[in-house]
Amino acid sequence: MAGTDHTKEAQLGGPAIILVVPQMGENIGKAARAMYNFGLTDLRMVAPRDGWPNDKAVAAASGADIVIEKAQIFDRLEEAVADLQMVYATTARDRHMVKPVVTPSEAAAQIRASEAKGAACGILFGGEKAGLKNEDVVLAQKVVSVPVNPAFASLNLAQAVLLMAYEWFQVADETAPESVDLLGADWATNAELVGLFEHLEAELDQAGFLFPPEKREPMVRNIRNILQRVPLTSQDTQTLRGIVKALAHGRPPRR
Amino acid sequence: MAGTDHTKEAQLGGPAIILVVPQMGENIGKAARAMYNFGLTDLRMVAPRDGWPNDKAVAAASGADIVIEKAQIFDRLEEAVADLQMVYATTARDRHMVKPVVTPSEAAAQIRASEAKGAACGILFGGEKAGLKNEDVVLAQKVVSVPVNPAFASLNLAQAVLLMAYEWFQVADETAPESVDLLGADWATNAELVGLFEHLEAELDQAGFLFPPEKREPMVRNIRNILQRVPLTSQDTQTLRGIVKALAHGRPPRR
Repeated sequence: MAGTDHTKEAQLGGPAIILVVPQMGENIGKAARAMYNFGLTDLRMVAPRDGWPNDKAVAAASGADIVIEKAQIFDRLEEAVADLQMVYATTARDRHMVKPVVTPSEAAAQIRASEAKGAACGILFGGEKAGLKNEDVVLAQKVVSVPVNPAFASLNLAQAVLLMAYEWFQVADETAPESVDLLGADWATNAELVGLFEHLEAELDQAGFLFPPEKREPMVRNIRNILQRVPLTSQDTQTLRGIVKALAHGRPPRR
Repeated sequence: MAGTDHTKEAQLGGPAIILVVPQMGENIGKAARAMYNFGLTDLRMVAPRDGWPNDKAVAAASGADIVIEKAQIFDRLEEAVADLQMVYATTARDRHMVKPVVTPSEAAAQIRASEAKGAACGILFGGEKAGLKNEDVVLAQKVVSVPVNPAFASLNLAQAVLLMAYEWFQVADETAPESVDLLGADWATNAELVGLFEHLEAELDQAGFLFPPEKREPMVRNIRNILQRVPLTSQDTQTLRGIVKALAHGRPPRR
């Protein structure tokens, strides 16, 4: 799934991604890479186990250098979230806290709405082993929980970051491909379609396919229905007529 | 984000995940792990570079053993998709093929709707280096493209699988919109489609239509893409093969 267009400007901004006591540099780098795929650049860490900077994080970021270079390190979570107005804690376990629990897509929509009003947002992720402590979750306004297979809940840190960043990017992505769904094709006119239909039917009459006569009409209707189900370009109708002609006339004469 | 509840039953099923010529066993294992987090268990591979079984895949699956154990290996993609009725190709690059392009969430909703009608679905993922080849994409009915930061599109194989599996899991059967307006149709399997393609191509070879040889491949790809754009029922493929046969052989002998 590679396809970076280096001529385009990065889309910067979005919520802060806050890794609380992350352990392996490789996972920090993977999280940075996941973030930047979806335009997030504000990476913050609380007391990373192996210190900072971290060569393994740089290597695993695979080119998401801007995220690594801008990363901020804090001693305590309170400092890391000090400037934020809406903080979400990602957790899979029930914390027995009376706190709103939302899905990633709900959180993403809320974050976009908050950002539109000028509020700074952040998302907390726990370390690889134990996740967030209860005192970390307390510092968040809401909890985000990814619905997973109850028999196998095994998302790693970078995957959890990926899903949150993905959802954030989808909320306002104006380049979503459905808007270009089959756009720009030179669609056939109805005259070209009927030309194709009649050409095919004439050859099928010659070939004795549309037989007996009382069945001809439903057979023609069925064939036209199949072809009408295709979105055909003008060029496609030419191709299909070429095929009909080749099949009917292109063979060497038989004995 | 750990929190497996081993007392709960796995939710099984969902679309087949088809890795086309995957390279590293570690990435296959990570893809399996991503799948099982979201209840997918039907893993298929076409010609994995390092053979199968693969110890590194088992290690990286981190307990998603059921996915690895059930994995099926095929020599050719045609065989891997033979029983499927709706196939999506994941790709980031513009393939210049006139084929519907959907987002992961749209694809997930469509797959749920197709599954509710009993249709078997699959999603193709290319190998780590080059992704899917054009002849692979041709075997899919639709293209799925993940909207990413245009300045940094760098999703790896397991991440792409994760996002598709995640989206599938989020869609509830009841809320799935109808993606196809032909309810309850007996859609053709890919084996029937390939049978139609190969029949047509054999006759076009005989007719000298697929000429010169260096143009044959793009011509075949173009014709297959036109036909893939039609939602074809099993009966439709029979009708079209009847037409091909009639056009090619049905005419009275010429002098």
